[in-house]
Amino acid sequence: MIPMTRSATAADKASCPDHHFFGPSSSKISVKGSIYPIEVGMRSVKLSQPYDCQGMSFDSMPLYDTSGPFGDPCFEHDPKKGLAPFRDTWNFCRDTVVSPAAEPSMTGRKPLRAKEGAAVTQMHYARKGIVTPEMEYVAIRENQALEAWIERSGGKPVTPEMVRDEIARGRAIIPANINHPELEPMVIGRNFRVKINANIGNSALGSSIEEEIEKAIWACRWGSDTVMDLSTGRNIHQTREWILRNSPVPIGTVPLYQALEKVGGIAEELNWEVYRDTLVEQAEQGVDYFTIHSGILAATLPHAEKRRTGIVSRGGSIMAKWCKAHRQENFLFTRFDEICDILRAYDVAVSLGDALRPGSIGDANDEAQFGELRTLGDLTLKAWARDVQVMIEGPGHVPLNLIRENMDKQLEYCHEAPFYTLGPLVTDIAAGYDHINSAIGGTLIATFGCSMLCYVTPKEHLGLPDREDVREGVIAHRVAAHAADIAKGSPTAWLRDELMSRARYAFAWEDQFALSLDPVKTREVHAQNMAATGDTAANARYCTMCGPDFCSMNRSQEAADMPG
Amino acid sequence: MIPMTRSATAADKASCPDHHFFGPSSSKISVKGSIYPIEVGMRSVKLSQPYDCQGMSFDSMPLYDTSGPFGDPCFEHDPKKGLAPFRDTWNFCRDTVVSPAAEPSMTGRKPLRAKEGAAVTQMHYARKGIVTPEMEYVAIRENQALEAWIERSGGKPVTPEMVRDEIARGRAIIPANINHPELEPMVIGRNFRVKINANIGNSALGSSIEEEIEKAIWACRWGSDTVMDLSTGRNIHQTREWILRNSPVPIGTVPLYQALEKVGGIAEELNWEVYRDTLVEQAEQGVDYFTIHSGILAATLPHAEKRRTGIVSRGGSIMAKWCKAHRQENFLFTRFDEICDILRAYDVAVSLGDALRPGSIGDANDEAQFGELRTLGDLTLKAWARDVQVMIEGPGHVPLNLIRENMDKQLEYCHEAPFYTLGPLVTDIAAGYDHINSAIGGTLIATFGCSMLCYVTPKEHLGLPDREDVREGVIAHRVAAHAADIAKGSPTAWLRDELMSRARYAFAWEDQFALSLDPVKTREVHAQNMAATGDTAANARYCTMCGPDFCSMNRSQEAADMPG
Repeated sequence: MIPMTRSATAADKASCPDHHFFGPSSSKISVKGSIYPIEVGMRSVKLSQPYDCQGMSFDSMPLYDTSGPFGDPCFEHDPKKGLAPFRDTWNFCRDTVVSPAAEPSMTGRKPLRAKEGAAVTQMHYARKGIVTPEMEYVAIRENQALEAWIERSGGKPVTPEMVRDEIARGRAIIPANINHPELEPMVIGRNFRVKINANIGNSALGSSIEEEIEKAIWACRWGSDTVMDLSTGRNIHQTREWILRNSPVPIGTVPLYQALEKVGGIAEELNWEVYRDTLVEQAEQGVDYFTIHSGILAATLPHAEKRRTGIVSRGGSIMAKWCKAHRQENFLFTRFDEICDILRAYDVAVSLGDALRPGSIGDANDEAQFGELRTLGDLTLKAWARDVQVMIEGPGHVPLNLIRENMDKQLEYCHEAPFYTLGPLVTDIAAGYDHINSAIGGTLIATFGCSMLCYVTPKEHLGLPDREDVREGVIAHRVAAHAADIAKGSPTAWLRDELMSRARYAFAWEDQFALSLDPVKTREVHAQNMAATGDTAANARYCTMCGPDFCSMNRSQEAADMPG
Repeated sequence: MIPMTRSATAADKASCPDHHFFGPSSSKISVKGSIYPIEVGMRSVKLSQPYDCQGMSFDSMPLYDTSGPFGDPCFEHDPKKGLAPFRDTWNFCRDTVVSPAAEPSMTGRKPLRAKEGAAVTQMHYARKGIVTPEMEYVAIRENQALEAWIERSGGKPVTPEMVRDEIARGRAIIPANINHPELEPMVIGRNFRVKINANIGNSALGSSIEEEIEKAIWACRWGSDTVMDLSTGRNIHQTREWILRNSPVPIGTVPLYQALEKVGGIAEELNWEVYRDTLVEQAEQGVDYFTIHSGILAATLPHAEKRRTGIVSRGGSIMAKWCKAHRQENFLFTRFDEICDILRAYDVAVSLGDALRPGSIGDANDEAQFGELRTLGDLTLKAWARDVQVMIEGPGHVPLNLIRENMDKQLEYCHEAPFYTLGPLVTDIAAGYDHINSAIGGTLIATFGCSMLCYVTPKEHLGLPDREDVREGVIAHRVAAHAADIAKGSPTAWLRDELMSRARYAFAWEDQFALSLDPVKTREVHAQNMAATGDTAANARYCTMCGPDFCSMNRSQEAADMPG
């Protein structure tokens, strides 16, 4: 097992790089802003030799890094103290906020909110033509300090102004609650790197707070761009507080789950006041985006009842029951403007939940699903009217041949707001391997323009994921997201593959490990296999797959070196 | 660990279904032929309740089964005796064959070959308008005894005549050497179920004969349709003999590997006579298809030498070295007609090797690759002129956006001969997770018309796979192949998902396990997770993912049951 939240000793600090989680050739670097005094963290891989790519020479490569301080072996982590609230020092909206009469956080910080009627959202500033520190931060982050390479490849580096423009149009969001100062900002939108989300959270049966915090940190170490805390059991507030104070990535929640706990788990007992108070409570804690199931309407329920697998969204099934019990329209729909008024005061983004996502491929692309999607498009315009950042959640189970229609309709109905999909899973029979199933559909929809993929773990349909499931799920979807970036022609994504392949042809094993999506696993597996040969892993010009006499790359180089 | 080749005790025999590898609700059934006295084995899943699908009711579902006798718990397996040579009793070509002066097999059977100048290939009979027992067998097998459902779904059941026609046109093959009588015939072609292949084989460093036989049986139990024995170390002949005598699925090889061993591993020492003798040796043992790298030509080598990762096919790198050392054209190209004359005498199918498949996404779809593909198209016509069955091997590493071009060009250049691809892998950086990487590209190319996917395991690029890697690799590619069948609209594939989803909505856990791609894993994972709850797995109307109070499907049904 790899120590996850180790504190560095004095000896470590003298030689940090050798103790790096990602291996000796990785180190943490930061890139300074030019508009604001910000520093953007990245992981830099030092290569064992320079590699030429299209006339440029690379002896290192900076990588996009979601691990935050946890990727730095010198970081001394105390979960009770949380991460440094560095975004407070940017203090961009200082003249617009007040401190409400709320409990301070576990670290003693008082929550903030916008003054009465004011907005502090990234969309608000973007529409006013203002570039925020968060916008500059994500621009730098997306470029990975590879501006020259991007231009050489015929691409355009991301600029803060371009970020501002995408956010103003609603085509991208930066989920960054003003009460989550520990957050390293990131952007979700189809003209940026494809992102992934990991769901964690205890169920009534499953796990402890400590385990869930560990999973959250674990998820962002392996490459998750955001984390959703879907806890439903006891201690929801406290679990979330610990996660937020220790999370360098945006945290999303489904506030309905906590609201339901507050009314004893009985859907019929839910009401607007309990829900509203829950939104405020979570917004003041610092949750960066809320999934809100406003799109499921009483009129669409008969469509869902005809399905093979009904409603498979937890929030959707709760609201369906509420609507039928009260014979009323979904209050998340009727109160949507009031909801947006809360969100805009903290800059909580709304992730419009797809309560009617298909839970089986036979239910895909039906009237229940697309009817809700049209409603989500209408709600998008309402949220935008209040400067609230929006993304749209998507399916679910969808056969490969119906994926394109999902993306096309989402763009059309939802005015190009970012799409955030679970999978899609391309078959119903892959339990135990649904992370693979989801990565297949996810790659395709991300290639078509989906902005963020919600991971699925090998435990999907069977039970609550543990730490290893989180790792498998995260990396499967990193494969998917990266493959989509490659297919979309991202120069930064391409460079990593270029360098990997040159390292492979050069038998530069350490370079291969560091550039791979899981340096820990590749290093371990290779070392185990080579141990039997007596050759040291670092030097061998072969691996045990073919053995020394049958290595094609070795023989190919010998052939190339022979006179023609 | 699951016993893999267990022998049944008397007690087992009295209650076979309860000891089935796939679980208590699975049993082995057979379907009789109407033209020939053949029996086609399938796995039947007995469901706990009838499920309605489009007006038909199902209380069981027969599944396509690659596990052969190993899927039957009553089967007493003695690897030294091998499987029953049941295809010898069909004896379809009895008047056309002679027994050459060759060693008998380990089970004492004398090899057969066609009389001088005669052909015994499925293509030969197909073109004469003759339906063979193998053709009827695969037609029955493809339909899964679901003819009524296929017609209800608007599809057409496969008929022996349709199989004959596809084989006569070269659009499908049945790899079935007359010296592999243990084989359960299967068909490879894009108008049939998508197939997968698992590679096994020891390298000089890796493993023993016993381990490789175990892997071969293991692979077909989990769903591999064919197995390639890529052994390169000592005991090549003996390893292959044991595998063939114990294999219910077609076995493929790359004869060049053994030929190279015969000349001491020195590529330059290879010659036609050694290679020819190796072909005959393996054909007489019963190998069902040979990968032959006839398409790599001296003229194309300069293209490959400009690449990032050169030649990554083992056979290709050997022939490249031979061509350059001798300054001669590849003898696998110049002797291709003679090769075909050997293959037609035993009905060994040729899998035309893609020596120049890209080993990195940056090398994909280049002149080296497509130049070779054009040559493979020319060779296809030559093989067909001798009634030899052909399939075409394909890449490799290909970014998602370039996959379609591969399939389109293959159909165009190679006259619709079946395509058999490795992956494609859609990124270079997924070592440790390349089975997922390959499943992503594989699903897409199979949806476009690729007939068979060669699996990739988690060990790809790192080392030799072990038994668990084989299982992971096989099931990842079963997910891919099945998802492609779904996308192509296969009624039999759809039905399995339909029943799975109805079982899921009914919380019929045992039905879900039996219908899943890995009944062993799903049952184990679910039981482990439920153990903590005190509820028994079989009855619970929830799983630990959401817990009893948050199960969406449960709540959805409660909502549906409420008055509207």
